[in-house]
Amino acid sequence: MHVAIIGAAGMLGRKLALRIAAEGGIGGRAVERLTLLDVVAPAGLPGFVGPVETRIADLSLPGEAAALVATRPDMIFHLAAIVSAEAELDFDKGYRINLDGTRFLFDAVRLASQQDGYHPRVVFASSIAVFGAPLTYPIPDDFHTTPLTSYGTQKAIGELLLSDYSRRGFFDGIGIRLPTVCIRPGKPNKAASGFFSNILREPLLGREAVLPVPETVRHWHVSPRSAVGFLLHAATLDVETVGPRRNLSMPGLSATVGEQIEALRRVAGDKAVALIRREPDAMITRMCDGWAPGFEATRARALGFTAESSFDEIIRVHIEDELGVPCDPLHRLSWHRPDGHADGAPPAGRRLCRDRVES
Amino acid sequence: MHVAIIGAAGMLGRKLALRIAAEGGIGGRAVERLTLLDVVAPAGLPGFVGPVETRIADLSLPGEAAALVATRPDMIFHLAAIVSAEAELDFDKGYRINLDGTRFLFDAVRLASQQDGYHPRVVFASSIAVFGAPLTYPIPDDFHTTPLTSYGTQKAIGELLLSDYSRRGFFDGIGIRLPTVCIRPGKPNKAASGFFSNILREPLLGREAVLPVPETVRHWHVSPRSAVGFLLHAATLDVETVGPRRNLSMPGLSATVGEQIEALRRVAGDKAVALIRREPDAMITRMCDGWAPGFEATRARALGFTAESSFDEIIRVHIEDELGVPCDPLHRLSWHRPDGHADGAPPAGRRLCRDRVES
Repeated sequence: MHVAIIGAAGMLGRKLALRIAAEGGIGGRAVERLTLLDVVAPAGLPGFVGPVETRIADLSLPGEAAALVATRPDMIFHLAAIVSAEAELDFDKGYRINLDGTRFLFDAVRLASQQDGYHPRVVFASSIAVFGAPLTYPIPDDFHTTPLTSYGTQKAIGELLLSDYSRRGFFDGIGIRLPTVCIRPGKPNKAASGFFSNILREPLLGREAVLPVPETVRHWHVSPRSAVGFLLHAATLDVETVGPRRNLSMPGLSATVGEQIEALRRVAGDKAVALIRREPDAMITRMCDGWAPGFEATRARALGFTAESSFDEIIRVHIEDELGVPCDPLHRLSWHRPDGHADGAPPAGRRLCRDRVES
Repeated sequence: MHVAIIGAAGMLGRKLALRIAAEGGIGGRAVERLTLLDVVAPAGLPGFVGPVETRIADLSLPGEAAALVATRPDMIFHLAAIVSAEAELDFDKGYRINLDGTRFLFDAVRLASQQDGYHPRVVFASSIAVFGAPLTYPIPDDFHTTPLTSYGTQKAIGELLLSDYSRRGFFDGIGIRLPTVCIRPGKPNKAASGFFSNILREPLLGREAVLPVPETVRHWHVSPRSAVGFLLHAATLDVETVGPRRNLSMPGLSATVGEQIEALRRVAGDKAVALIRREPDAMITRMCDGWAPGFEATRARALGFTAESSFDEIIRVHIEDELGVPCDPLHRLSWHRPDGHADGAPPAGRRLCRDRVES
């Protein structure tokens, strides 16, 4: 099977490529060839057995989508997007990349399909940003998409195109509405929603993090590991069981910021929690009112999509996948001095270790 | 006020222009200038006091939308569309006219808005085709849009763009989801849904009509007069009271085909009903399963949109507006011979008249 990942240099795209390379296939089908595409050079995959082609391309430019489709991937993951904040700041760029780029891709597949019956699986990373306030909690599967950002609008349009092109028989599309990915690895970024990850990731490294909203703020989360799991599950799902409604609100964990913090306390102790500095920000707090507090995700769960069921678990996934420390519920983390003695204090130079928690 | 009607040669566009001309204004604001645009020449408006410019233009062609916007209409009615059946048959044409045409129009307004603060009202004729089966009854205002036609997809995308461009402050958009317009004047057409109108319009003229579906089929209707009323009300609505969700499911009348027929019997008698010939068509009957049976339309009603409350009323509106016979609930219609004697028989050469019904 030939798999193409569009947006392969992004956080999820990279994790997806690594997972496919590590597992050698998707859902029991071997992957012999990978195409990694992004506007910046995606990293290669030295461990992968087959040929890996990396392409630097912008699908919103003429001919680029057709050039990718000419390689006839059996499976296309479309993860490329201008993120919410940038799409809001740069109206033209957001519509060009997120709407035109997606439509050009779908149209290139359509033309190939009409040419020789080409019929790939297309997995489209949509977002809970297709929903806009006022929202109910939990949000049911049949709730309307009334986005309050240009990014959410562009994703909602992508969903509609995906459904129609699938209904027309040009490809087998599945759109998955990703929850906020938490804990997002890497450095704190300027996204307004960044604090959801910052207040966990930074204290786990012994660094301060700023919390700009009250602890009562409720939001919808999934680990990067489960998000990649969604993509892979969507890739092998029997579309007959999905039916014509090809866009699915993914499962996730609904939690308040207070619940996130208590999970951090259980996993990494009071000293970690003490690194969260409260700096109320009225604008970010107001923005939170517009974000989805949680979903029923009945259809997706019935179709076999799974996510974490506690924030302790989300934190442990981060510790395992990003910090390289195997982690299980019987262990509490603490920072060890170079001499190996644990005293719970998290300054720089110490490393995160597990201490057995007596239960 | 300068008003532009895009799609002015269509049935609703023509009625809208005539009504504005007759009333001289919209919602108390005088209309001094009208621009009527369509891909075929719209008829002029001899009775209108101000200048009427008719333009033959296709907004999906480069420069056409900008040329219209250069005339800076204060109010734009966007009714132009490739209808459902044609958009399904001709994929490219449907997307070009219904999606690109709409986006080009909105973008032309956006660029003008960024140039000099231009900020018109834009009324967009959407459709209940944005909804697709399985549907509940009645469909609530917050039900998701999962169209099962390319036409419905294109309208749903137009709605999303309208909301986002309005939120961004480029114009004040209102999208109205029109029910099936019934009784549609003119000749029977090949639209699968044409029978809803045919079985009333034709017998009222003493002509046979074919009913291809069972009498239990339930659908959502509005008269052309009320549909024009929706457009005019949307044009003057206070957008502050509407909020960010700019697309509204319009009120209408939910009725079964059996209820339509009984209304015809009450208004025009058994002889008219006898002209309905049953010719079951499995394909059209199957299609009916996907059509909306009715809506709550709570928001639209609260915002002052009104429609008929019985099919008798819908039939009477048709008799008054299309057949030129004043009609009220105390009169039953029958066909008069040239000598003025009524005998209830509806052959050609007789004219429709009112007979007082003793109650």
